[in-house]
Amino acid sequence: MFIGRVKGSLWATRKDEKLSGLKFLVVELDEYNGPQHSLVAADNTGAGLDDLVLVSTGSAARMSLENPEIPVDAVIVGIIDSVEIDQ
Amino acid sequence: MFIGRVKGSLWATRKDEKLSGLKFLVVELDEYNGPQHSLVAADNTGAGLDDLVLVSTGSAARMSLENPEIPVDAVIVGIIDSVEIDQ
Amino acid sequence: MFIGRVKGSLWATRKDEKLSGLKFLVVELDEYNGPQHSLVAADNTGAGLDDLVLVSTGSAARMSLENPEIPVDAVIVGIIDSVEIDQ
Amino acid sequence: MFIGRVKGSLWATRKDEKLSGLKFLVVELDEYNGPQHSLVAADNTGAGLDDLVLVSTGSAARMSLENPEIPVDAVIVGIIDSVEIDQ
Amino acid sequence: MFIGRVKGSLWATRKDEKLSGLKFLVVELDEYNGPQHSLVAADNTGAGLDDLVLVSTGSAARMSLENPEIPVDAVIVGIIDSVEIDQ
Repeated sequence: MFIGRVKGSLWATRKDEKLSGLKFLVVELDEYNGPQHSLVAADNTGAGLDDLVLVSTGSAARMSLENPEIPVDAVIVGIIDSVEIDQ
Repeated sequence: MFIGRVKGSLWATRKDEKLSGLKFLVVELDEYNGPQHSLVAADNTGAGLDDLVLVSTGSAARMSLENPEIPVDAVIVGIIDSVEIDQ
Repeated sequence: MFIGRVKGSLWATRKDEKLSGLKFLVVELDEYNGPQHSLVAADNTGAGLDDLVLVSTGSAARMSLENPEIPVDAVIVGIIDSVEIDQ
Repeated sequence: MFIGRVKGSLWATRKDEKLSGLKFLVVELDEYNGPQHSLVAADNTGAGLDDLVLVSTGSAARMSLENPEIPVDAVIVGIIDSVEIDQ
Repeated sequence: MFIGRVKGSLWATRKDEKLSGLKFLVVELDEYNGPQHSLVAADNTGAGLDDLVLVSTGSAARMSLENPEIPVDAVIVGIIDSVEIDQ
């Protein structure tokens, strides 16, 4: 999974109808995570702007949705309370 | 998912017959997304040149097609109205 | 999917028997595609040296083969006639 | 799979309930592995701080969990005793 | 698939029991392949140190194992005899 920070959201009226009702957040990946800077994730936890979140990607993401046939490849699966890193 | 902009399209007469009827668009990934510059996505929303689009990849992409056995690993699942980023 | 150009081929006598009969081509990914320079793809279209090709990766690749249980993660699914990019 | 070193852990009270009971460790990927610096993996082996671990990602990760429908895309599948690299 | 060279091996006594009996080799990815320098792959072909090998990744990797529920995301599926690249 990735650690990221919610930086914004996006709207799309013309979209695959299976995506209806989902909230799409732009998540900036923690620089700790390498070259990928951000991605768009469906939100399943009620995350808000600036929340530090845990993002699951690939086929695992669909396991977090009620309907595993929704064409989504990244989902916010948790709002992080704290991260402890041993320097 | 990725945010990208439609930059062009491609044609291939000699191809896997399961791909017949699909439109293939070249999508330049938003520089906000890191090192991958572009990819080719099947279009499911009627997106056109310069449209800002939402792209789903991996096995999720096939969930957006009528037949999930089509060998496609990226699909445009939405045409973006607006993106709000907290600077 | 990726756009790439066929740059060569490879042979492996000692291999998983499910791979027998498949042709393996080395495909240089279009610089337009970011940091990944090349990959090896099974060929399903009769592509030849220097052909511009469309490559599907991940689980989608196996959908292009008769037997979806072949351990292949990239397949050439089309030989590109033309790419139109809006400069 | 990736070789990585456990650098910390994270807690998230508000999360997908399927994730309950899982321990999440921050794993710094061995610089030997390229641009991705770290990821978050569920721990299945009792790994601790500074342990050198083997991480499996993608759909394979869920195969290491009792319930393959848990939305997790990376799991620690082994604590490495030794790595022998031919210089 | 990736082209890589076997550079070493690793041992892990404390691991997911489904991994028992598998040999894990460290494969340095051919610089021709971009930013990812190396990965760990289960060996299915009897590859040895310095062998040039073909590696399949993602869910395809598990198709090369007797039991597709083994949590492995990369497998050596062939020992390469020769690679012909058109300069």
